[in-house]
Amino acid sequence: MARLARSILVTGSNRGIGLEFVRQLTETPDCPEHLFATCRNPDGPRGKALRDLADKHPNIHVVQLEVENQASVKAALGTVESYLEGKGLNLLINNAGVDTFDTLQTVEQQEMLSTFNINVVGPILVVKEFLPLLKRAAKGAETEGMSCGKAAIINISSKLGSIGEGFEEVQDLFYAYRASKAALNMVTACLARELKVDEILCTAIHPGWVKTDMGTEKAPLTVESSAQGILKVLAGLSASSSGTLVDWEGRRLLW
Amino acid sequence: MARLARSILVTGSNRGIGLEFVRQLTETPDCPEHLFATCRNPDGPRGKALRDLADKHPNIHVVQLEVENQASVKAALGTVESYLEGKGLNLLINNAGVDTFDTLQTVEQQEMLSTFNINVVGPILVVKEFLPLLKRAAKGAETEGMSCGKAAIINISSKLGSIGEGFEEVQDLFYAYRASKAALNMVTACLARELKVDEILCTAIHPGWVKTDMGTEKAPLTVESSAQGILKVLAGLSASSSGTLVDWEGRRLLW
Repeated sequence: MARLARSILVTGSNRGIGLEFVRQLTETPDCPEHLFATCRNPDGPRGKALRDLADKHPNIHVVQLEVENQASVKAALGTVESYLEGKGLNLLINNAGVDTFDTLQTVEQQEMLSTFNINVVGPILVVKEFLPLLKRAAKGAETEGMSCGKAAIINISSKLGSIGEGFEEVQDLFYAYRASKAALNMVTACLARELKVDEILCTAIHPGWVKTDMGTEKAPLTVESSAQGILKVLAGLSASSSGTLVDWEGRRLLW
Repeated sequence: MARLARSILVTGSNRGIGLEFVRQLTETPDCPEHLFATCRNPDGPRGKALRDLADKHPNIHVVQLEVENQASVKAALGTVESYLEGKGLNLLINNAGVDTFDTLQTVEQQEMLSTFNINVVGPILVVKEFLPLLKRAAKGAETEGMSCGKAAIINISSKLGSIGEGFEEVQDLFYAYRASKAALNMVTACLARELKVDEILCTAIHPGWVKTDMGTEKAPLTVESSAQGILKVLAGLSASSSGTLVDWEGRRLLW
């Protein structure tokens, strides 16, 4: 596989699909020059797998970033800028997110607000801070059109956030989670419109029903297959996919 | 027009479309027996028009209700129950909401959270508390199927929350507002699924582009026409409309 992008930032990269993105990206023959692997607490016990991976790959820069904490996002931007040495950031993958399993009976105000803060406000805060770097990458590119190799924002969303077809496989309602992902899909559509003039691609991705904490063991898809599928899809994205929701196989989903 | 429902509760009823609902409902030949007109601060200067209306119509009960404040919602429930004297509530119209005009440049974390709290969490808190009364109305009804006269939750949403067709008339992005309405649409779809077994109808309504603070004077529709259209649509809703988003003329919108 050809190099997806010169520089990539992945949030929530200490576990699950985020960690698998980092692992697979460093295994490609043409690994990104800079792979910023961010997470809330890279020095804690839950950051160990990522630290171990980074120890083996000098291209991985582990960076502390709490998406819903503006000061943390700003600090991470400073670190990323110091590595990029005046160049732009090509690909921002907003992967960090929280799973919530509430029902109408159990859903609480603070949990809804916290879910929305991490899953919707967080990606917006990250985009706002890193936008100058994405714009720089787009301006500096020698290619026409849009691509993840040039300048792109990928929001890891969920089919559970699709009102049109998100109740097919999973009937559980998960009010806070579904509402947050529907909102993130809307944010993706807004970003795609706003950043079209800058030739920055913005797409929401459904990773499939994956064997994770949320997906449970019943899920048909492994983390490895999901991440592999998504990276293949990302490599093929162009302007026509900006502002859409596609799954890990590239199939476009209803809103 | 025949009576829409025996008992109706409208949130945010001190101004705009909410106030107009109350005004038009009391003008119908067969006015609701109980019309609970709630708002954040009924005794303040912004509650004067509603108080004046209630002075002329004994069926209107003005009740303090701050949708995002659980204690306030619980207190309002107590007041409503005392009027209903053991009977259920037929129709809950979640009309209260906040307009936000942010851009990517201006959108702030606290404003997003506050918008989400009022426009999405608020309706859920109100539904949770009033659900026993809605269920009681559904059980006590002698009619088959679903209708606003039997038991229904109407969420006043917006076409701006439609990713599929919400960018046609209004190009402004309003991130916080659009994301909150997309989330509210998802919540409506979830509620419709959850409450189908209880025969409680749940529909989201787009009031049109209305001459209000948000709609501005450029809007083609008056508050009177919008409210009149919505009340006519509500009278015709049945099970097939539960879990959908329709506009003030009854046209179904994309998510």
